[in-house]
This record gives sequence, C-alpha cells and structure tokens, in this order.
Amino acid sequence: MGEFGNERVVTDDVDLEILYGLTADLVRETLAAIGAQDRARLKELIEPLHAADVADLFQALSGYNRIRLEKLLGDDLEAEVFVHLDEAVREDLIDELNADELVKVVNELDSDDAVELIEELAEEEQRALLERIPDADRLLYEQALGYPEDSAGRLMRREYAAIPSIWKAGQAIDFMRDAPGVPENFYGLFVVGPDNKPLGVVMASRLLRTHRPVAVTEIMAPEIRLIPVTMDQEDVAFLFRQYGLVEAPVIDEDGRIIGVITVDDVVDVIDEEHEEDMLKLGGVAVDDLYEAVADTIRSRLSWLVLNLLTAILASIVIGFFQAEIEKVVALAVLMPIVASMGGNAGTQTLTISVRALAMKELTPDNALRIVGKEVLVGGINGMAFAMLICVIAYFWFDDLMIGIVIGIAMVVNLLVAGLAGILIPLAINRAGADPAVGSSILLTTVTDVVGFLCFLGLAAIVLF
Amino acid sequence: MGEFGNERVVTDDVDLEILYGLTADLVRETLAAIGAQDRARLKELIEPLHAADVADLFQALSGYNRIRLEKLLGDDLEAEVFVHLDEAVREDLIDELNADELVKVVNELDSDDAVELIEELAEEEQRALLERIPDADRLLYEQALGYPEDSAGRLMRREYAAIPSIWKAGQAIDFMRDAPGVPENFYGLFVVGPDNKPLGVVMASRLLRTHRPVAVTEIMAPEIRLIPVTMDQEDVAFLFRQYGLVEAPVIDEDGRIIGVITVDDVVDVIDEEHEEDMLKLGGVAVDDLYEAVADTIRSRLSWLVLNLLTAILASIVIGFFQAEIEKVVALAVLMPIVASMGGNAGTQTLTISVRALAMKELTPDNALRIVGKEVLVGGINGMAFAMLICVIAYFWFDDLMIGIVIGIAMVVNLLVAGLAGILIPLAINRAGADPAVGSSILLTTVTDVVGFLCFLGLAAIVLF
Repeated sequence: MGEFGNERVVTDDVDLEILYGLTADLVRETLAAIGAQDRARLKELIEPLHAADVADLFQALSGYNRIRLEKLLGDDLEAEVFVHLDEAVREDLIDELNADELVKVVNELDSDDAVELIEELAEEEQRALLERIPDADRLLYEQALGYPEDSAGRLMRREYAAIPSIWKAGQAIDFMRDAPGVPENFYGLFVVGPDNKPLGVVMASRLLRTHRPVAVTEIMAPEIRLIPVTMDQEDVAFLFRQYGLVEAPVIDEDGRIIGVITVDDVVDVIDEEHEEDMLKLGGVAVDDLYEAVADTIRSRLSWLVLNLLTAILASIVIGFFQAEIEKVVALAVLMPIVASMGGNAGTQTLTISVRALAMKELTPDNALRIVGKEVLVGGINGMAFAMLICVIAYFWFDDLMIGIVIGIAMVVNLLVAGLAGILIPLAINRAGADPAVGSSILLTTVTDVVGFLCFLGLAAIVLF
Repeated sequence: MGEFGNERVVTDDVDLEILYGLTADLVRETLAAIGAQDRARLKELIEPLHAADVADLFQALSGYNRIRLEKLLGDDLEAEVFVHLDEAVREDLIDELNADELVKVVNELDSDDAVELIEELAEEEQRALLERIPDADRLLYEQALGYPEDSAGRLMRREYAAIPSIWKAGQAIDFMRDAPGVPENFYGLFVVGPDNKPLGVVMASRLLRTHRPVAVTEIMAPEIRLIPVTMDQEDVAFLFRQYGLVEAPVIDEDGRIIGVITVDDVVDVIDEEHEEDMLKLGGVAVDDLYEAVADTIRSRLSWLVLNLLTAILASIVIGFFQAEIEKVVALAVLMPIVASMGGNAGTQTLTISVRALAMKELTPDNALRIVGKEVLVGGINGMAFAMLICVIAYFWFDDLMIGIVIGIAMVVNLLVAGLAGILIPLAINRAGADPAVGSSILLTTVTDVVGFLCFLGLAAIVLF
C-alpha cells in the first residue's frame, strides 16, 4: 500500500507509485465502471490521467473491455491516447471508429503524431481519411507519407520556429509574441538565410537575456546538425544520441528547412530499434504481447519452421554415426554437452557483435582485431572446459579416450563458436541486411553441426 | 566515397557520412600522425571534431595507440571526451593521467559528468582527487556520491534555473540576464514556493512572449513530474519516456528542489538499460567489446560454467535411457530435435516476457491472461510441429511408434516451453531480481530436461 492508499500495478518501488498515474486500484475501479456502464464515473477516473497512462490503462484490459471502454468514453477519449498505444491495440481501437470520429482524432493531433497514425492505415482507408481532412493539413500529410517509411520525413513535426538571419534580437522577440504559426513551446529558434537554409540556432533562453539591438547571428550557435529528410530514423537516433541533441532541423534536398525533429520522438525510435534488436535475437518478428493468439502463432511460426529444418540437419549429422552410437552409447549421452556449450559461447559473442554493430562500434577498421580477440577467448575458454569435461567424462564412463575425444571436440567447437559469433553478424551486415535477424539460428546451426560432427567423427576415428 | 572525399567508417549510408564526424580516412590519418609523433597534425585533425567523435576515434584505435594519442594530445584533449568514452577505455586513459591532469579534467566538466567520472574511481583515488577540488564543488560531488549508485542523485545536474512564485515575468527576465549561477542554456525555469518546493515550470519560449507585469504563476505549466533524489535511474527513464519529458526537477526528501535531470542524460540511461537487458539475455555480464582478453574470458566464464552444469544435468537424464538408446539408436538421432524446438519456442516467449517486464507492460493484472495465451500458442504450435515431425520420423526410420512418441514429446515440450518462457521471468521478477539475468539458461535447462525425459521416457514405455 502506498502513500495514497494505492497499490501500484507495475513495480515494488514506492517512488514510482507516486509518480506513475496507473494503479491496480484504478484498473479495478475502471473495470467496475465499465461493468456498470457508468460513463460519469469513467470520465472522473480518467480525467486526471496523462494520455500515456490512459493508453496503459487500455492495454491492461482485455480486448473485449478495451472496446467497451472506448465506446463508453466516446468523445471524452483524448486523441493523444492513440499516439501512446501499442500498434496492435491501436489498430483494434481505430477499427471501431467511424469515419467522422477518425477525422476528429487526426485533426486534434500534432502533424508528426497524425502521420504516425495515418501511415498504419490500409491504403484505401488512408485515401478515404485524407479526403476528409482540411486542404492545408492534407497536403502536409500527403507530403510526409511520400517520404520513405521510417525516414526523418515521417518523424518530423512541420511546426517550427525560424527567423531570418538579418534580424535583431528585438525583432525575433516581437515575432515570437505575434506570429500565429509558431509552436507554443520550443527550445530554439532556427536562424535561416534568404534561401531558407538553416545557419544556426538561437536558444529561447539565450534570446531572453539578449538586448534588443543585438543581431541574431551574434547570439546563435552555429553548430547545428541538419537532418536530410530521407535519412533513416535509425541514423537520426544515432545523431541525437551521439551529439546529445534536443532538436534538429530537417532539410529538403536543396538544404531548405522543412521541419524539426525533437528528442522525445527520437526516444521512441531508440526504444523501437532496441526492441527490434532484442526481439530479432530472440527469434520473434514483432512484439506480439497484445496480438491475438492466431497472429502470435503466425509471427512465431516461420522461425520455428526454420529451427526445425536446422535441428533435422543436426540429426542427419548424428545419423551418420548410428553404428558408433550403438556400440558406445556414452556418445549419445555426452554429445549434447558439446553442442550446448558451443551454442552458448557463440551466443555470447553474437550478442556483443550485434550490439556493437547497432552502436556503430564494430567497423571495418577494428573488425579484424575483434575477430582475433573472439577466437582467442573461444580458444582459451575451450581449453579450460576441455580439461574439465575430459575429467568428468573419464570418471563417468571410465574411459580416458572418450574424455580426450570430448575435450578436443570442445576446443574446436568453442573456437568455431567465437568465430561464427562475430563473422555471421558481420556477413549479414555486409550483405546489407539486419545482423540481428536470423543470426542466432544460423549460429546454433553451425555450433550444433560442428559440435556433433567433431565429437562423433573424432570418436569414430579414435574409438573404433 | 562521399561528398567530402571521405569514406565513412561505420555505415554505407551517404546521409550519415556527411553528418558523422568520424571517417575511415580520419582514423588512418590519425594513425599516421601518431606514428610520426606529429602533434600539430593531430591537433589539426581533432580540433573540428565533436567530443563524442573524438571518443569514437580513440575507440577505433588499439589500446596501445589510444595511450600514445592521449600523451601526444596532452592539454589539447578536451575533458568532455572522457564523458563519451566506453567505461573500459575511459579507465585505461584515466590511469595514464597524473593527479594534476585528472583534477583539471574534473574541473572542466559539468557537475553530472564529473560525478560520472569520479564514481568509477577506486575509493582511495576518489579521496585523493576530491582533496584537490575547490571546496564548493567538492561538497557537491561528495553529496552526489552519497546518493545510491544509479539513482537520480547521481544523474542530476546541480545547476538549474529557479524563480520564486511571487515574481512577475519582468523580474524573471531581469534575473535571467544578471544572475551568475543560471546555466547558459535551459528549457524551463522552475517556479518554487518560499520553502523551495517546485510548483511548476515556465518555458523560456513562453517567458519570451509574456509582458513584464504578468505573474509567473499565471504562465507556468503546473504539471511537472518531481523526481525523488533516491529514485532508481531506470524509473527515471521510465517517467521521461512515459510522459515525453525534456527536463524534470529533482527533489530531496523534504520536497525541495536540489537539481535537474535533462533528457540527454536519460537517453544514455535508456541505452544502458537496453544494453543490459540484451546482454543479460545473451549470457554476457557486461559489454566487453573494449575489454582485454583476460577480462572478457572472466566475464563470460561464470555463465559457461553454469551452462556446463545444466548440460550435464540433461546428459544425466539421457544416461537413464542408455539401454533403450542401445537398442533403438534412432532415439539418439531424434532426441536433439525435441530439445532444440523447445528451447527456441521458449526463447521466443521469454524474449517477449522480459521485454514486457522491462516496459512495465506485464503486470499482476494481465499476467494470467498472457500466461494462458502463451500456453495456447505453445500447445497449438506444438500440435502443428508434432504432426510434422511424426511424419518425418515415420518415413525416416520406418517406424510409426517412434513418430507418435516424438510427436507427443513435441507437444508436451512446446507447452512447457511456453509456460516456462513466461513463468521463469515472472518468478525472477517477483523475487526482486532482474528477469533478464539467468532466465535463458534456466529456460533451456527446463526445455532440455523435459524434452529428453519426455521423449526417451515415453519411448521406454511404448517401444519396449
């Protein structure tokens, strides 16, 4: 029980309980109000919440209750809630909106959020929706949708504050007060030349302290990073992270400013990219937490089918040695150890490599050095575990040769694991694909096949 | 080759080539200048770079050349570069600094960056360093180091802009112009009561547009999130992400403002936490990309030892069925398939669960629903693959009973995999530990043991 008598839903941290709007009590009370169809109570419960917390509340409900809550809230459901929803949940809720309601939601949102919502609709739905949007906005959205998916153009807000470089501080201040198109909150004013190319940025806090006759070019910071509108959002995130940016102007191909990207959007991108890397390494295509069972099965099936094929490949390798296994059944008992150790050691290297590639820390310049290091680590670890498993196998089956065979197989497989753990993601990356996709299944295929082949093959030569 | 004749080190993306300061050519030229001990050339090469890019340059070099570059740059090495270095590399470079040089570096940094540097030093080094720091700063650092590791107190900057709630906009503007302690750039001014408790925030951009006689309380946004100084940085990151914050005041236990956390620091925390989750799932303790071989082996060894033990456990299970395997060697050939499919299906569920726990999306309220879903997914996938593998095994070994046995084992193991994939991280989380640590090794232990036991045990009953 926390300070406000609420039990927090999500962690056991007292601090967060006070600061995070969603509580277990709130979820229960919402459920009760949904059951009683009590609109007034629902409104009362949800009104004090941040849109992001309302989104979490929707996600804490079952699919059935989500729709009921949406219907009961009706117009009282803030448009911004849709921005914070998980994609699968958002899709379900949007499906329940009629054309008028959807138009209303889109019109209430900032341009970047609206684009995020529209881009997920099917093409006919997009067209139908855009027809009902005011001309000026429609043009903006159509332009944004014209940029490649996951590009800066999709991410940027079209509302930004820019001033001509010939102005004095006083003119900038007056402009801020009167201009209608200026966003309500901003961090910096972009200073642009006559051709609309950004030259620098004047922080609002700096402008505050500057006397009116000073030229804006005197107080602007000239080091701004210009984001080309077609840049991939992953690269945008890299630049924000690398240079600690809070906002950056987006430019068209002629170098003219056409929008702005702010750090809060980039935080979402960073989250997304991280999630993708992690899920791909785990063999899941998308975060299917909120997906229906059928969709979840579909999203995981292809990976499992691939795994079945590679597992059968490993079994075929074992099949070559049936005669040997029949004679020395200890081989069957011990063989999974070699494969398992190779798989785990390789996964360690693979994880480091995929992460380093994502962080742009694994480059052609240092690849050779790091490959060498991983082979060395694999070899040394291999020798340590070889001695250990040699002794264990010797005492277990009272057969020194089996101990020696499994020891040698262990060294070889851990060497191969280290090598494969870095070369596989490097090769996939070089081919222009995402090194997180498929690399773990490729890796365990290699370590399984090499592990079984080396152990059983060596046994066939030495023991018979 | 890019627009500026440079080949980019890190990606094949033309956009990024123009915006990212570090190029392969630059690395090569730096190496040449280090070889020639040409200080002037080095200074010329490094001067135009952002500190973050200089840090990347250091990291692109071998350990030996890093130290040489540091020595050659001497006083021309910006203190901020240390902030951007990977921990292992930073430690190496700091070890080369004498006491005076280290004091100089710390004095040049912002308070939050200085604390980040100091907290990594050994205790005696910390004490020796702090003795040489000016009194006022030393007090700040000692206070910060008094807060728990990874808490808001370590993360916050002590320089912030606050104004009393009784002021008019004009007073705030005058204060901004004259006060010496105000940071050069800021986004908002915190409005505080007479007890120094934050009441709201006035954006600098808002203040710019306000006439002097207006009260600051009229233009402040009252919805601010106050960060308790002892809050864990992971929770801080959650709040920034959840509410799209750019900066937030940090308060002491009496609710008084004592510092500010800005989003750029939080981006680093988000990165760190993501990295940790990913590495832990991959069975690596720390990002050891820049660690020496010996340290890398040490960091990976404990995991591999644990894996050896669990692999031996699985082998012991197989050992129970030596007599059966000797008679029907097909069992040895097929058994890794059941274990491997269970391991992969379980890893999929595990990845989704760990991610959902980290995002606070898996809660006591929806856990039961999601467990049910995972069991259903596991069961249905299990039945599909059971039929497939049954047919394959039947044709491979011309024995229907073996097909049926492996089919049943597959269903059971995929059911167990789905269940274990969510229950293991939930249980670890409930016990107050990090669900990413150790969960994958526990999972594969379960799926290996159940897979072998179910397949071989069933075979022992049915076939003999």
